[in-house]
Amino acid sequence: MQSKEDNITAWFAAQSKIDPARFPIGIGDDMAQVMLGGGASVLITTDMLLDGVHFDLKTATLEQVGYKSMAASLSDCAAMATIPLCAVCAVALPKGFGQKELKALHAGLVRAGRMFDCELIGGDITAWETNTQKLAVNVSMLSRPSGYHPPVRRNGAKVGDIICVSGTLGGSLAGKHLSFTPRVELALAMTKIVRLNAMMDISDGLSTDLNRICTQSKVGAIIEAVKIPVSEAAKNAPNPLFAVMNNGEDFELLFMLPPEEWEKLKTAGRYDITCIGTVTDTGRMELKTSDGTIVPIEPKGFDHL
Amino acid sequence: MQSKEDNITAWFAAQSKIDPARFPIGIGDDMAQVMLGGGASVLITTDMLLDGVHFDLKTATLEQVGYKSMAASLSDCAAMATIPLCAVCAVALPKGFGQKELKALHAGLVRAGRMFDCELIGGDITAWETNTQKLAVNVSMLSRPSGYHPPVRRNGAKVGDIICVSGTLGGSLAGKHLSFTPRVELALAMTKIVRLNAMMDISDGLSTDLNRICTQSKVGAIIEAVKIPVSEAAKNAPNPLFAVMNNGEDFELLFMLPPEEWEKLKTAGRYDITCIGTVTDTGRMELKTSDGTIVPIEPKGFDHL
Repeated sequence: MQSKEDNITAWFAAQSKIDPARFPIGIGDDMAQVMLGGGASVLITTDMLLDGVHFDLKTATLEQVGYKSMAASLSDCAAMATIPLCAVCAVALPKGFGQKELKALHAGLVRAGRMFDCELIGGDITAWETNTQKLAVNVSMLSRPSGYHPPVRRNGAKVGDIICVSGTLGGSLAGKHLSFTPRVELALAMTKIVRLNAMMDISDGLSTDLNRICTQSKVGAIIEAVKIPVSEAAKNAPNPLFAVMNNGEDFELLFMLPPEEWEKLKTAGRYDITCIGTVTDTGRMELKTSDGTIVPIEPKGFDHL
Repeated sequence: MQSKEDNITAWFAAQSKIDPARFPIGIGDDMAQVMLGGGASVLITTDMLLDGVHFDLKTATLEQVGYKSMAASLSDCAAMATIPLCAVCAVALPKGFGQKELKALHAGLVRAGRMFDCELIGGDITAWETNTQKLAVNVSMLSRPSGYHPPVRRNGAKVGDIICVSGTLGGSLAGKHLSFTPRVELALAMTKIVRLNAMMDISDGLSTDLNRICTQSKVGAIIEAVKIPVSEAAKNAPNPLFAVMNNGEDFELLFMLPPEEWEKLKTAGRYDITCIGTVTDTGRMELKTSDGTIVPIEPKGFDHL
């Protein structure tokens, strides 16, 4: 079962006539890859953030909105274990927004980008002509392969792989979604010492994003509920397990690697990561609850359609 | 005198800490350039198109909106005389839009892209959560240098250069803005045989866009009113000269080249281009009217702020 968003994305991918020699990674991953001759390549991602959906200007500052817009794309670079290069930003401004508001947005964009030497190199400023329209911010970002590990895709998980996540999950809307540090350093550090088979960032909820990797890798998965690292915010939720499985915007890494690679990573022992399950050949996503019962996982995270 | 949009763009450019060895072209041109090692480089542009501003869904089809969104970025590739590579598209959908509307948009995006072998390789689908919000479409596009001419910037116009435009100007909103063919082939063909000093595409009106080149090149310009090629739509306008000078969305090329290069281009003789004036050292934009009077040109094209 796929979300409506994943259905249409699969349809777009089926329509695309991409030469894999020129575009080894296309629609359906966190970034697409473009070969440029002489072995050089670049990856690109684009993210649209909307007032009332991804942020709320009644409570978030424009600086925070700028920060989050850039950080969301940096998180895509992390998801592929690639090195951020630069970004462009296009905005659709509500009536009444001017230089002051643009400078606040800019400050946030730059604050996030400069954590990873990712400079804003261009943009487009547009403004709505009617009063009711809200702010939209689009960031498109380029990255490059690290050189020591190929970009990590969603379709490479293998039966028997260990399933890991970084940080803690759930309850991001309580604040983390505006202030998270994209996991660029962690992704690059891990891929220096181990080989990852699949990775993405958790933006629409663990259940939905795990489903994407399982579908694209044609595998199943079993997750152990007690192993999932629960954020402080999710601990306070009415149903913490529901929160960690289905809340969006964690911006943590979800990745799969062979057991022997996981042993290497554990030995290195200094990463903020947790093993939460195993890749299976069942074709299903399953959750082992604290009493040992096994129940199916439904993708109940955020669906934009 | 600059538009508000140009003022804030200049401020952003002043804030940016771009290493010119990595980013030879940054904020302020139609595209920014990123060096990737081994001499390879890529250029990037981003364009946001809004319902009620750049198109009107009461009269335009979603297929036309998709086409225009891609064509606007292709026009940026033409403006730099670079070769389109690929694009990503992010959309903010109004309530009620689903797969049918996305497929119509997609058809238009693909129709425009495939004219120049520019494939859609990724995107982002988001949806507004309140009823009144309108469609926003963002396209970010990559291109590469042609190999026979460097990317043409806005800041290279020299005193004595001939000022040319492609096609005819004015009245684009009568229809052309939804159906224009981006001038990619013309730009690449011209730069095969002559050296251009400056170029951009006319998106906000000749007066405003000429002002951008003059400001960035630190030159003046004199335009001869009778030489400006007037579109059929502009001929029907109440004031055709005002229309050709200030209407937006022509998506034609505005470029400057040395007189001897212009002679070469004229001799080649098969291009849809017209000489309309000369670059001067006055620091002012001037218009020579049909009776020989010289009047100042004010940038009165579209200002997004």
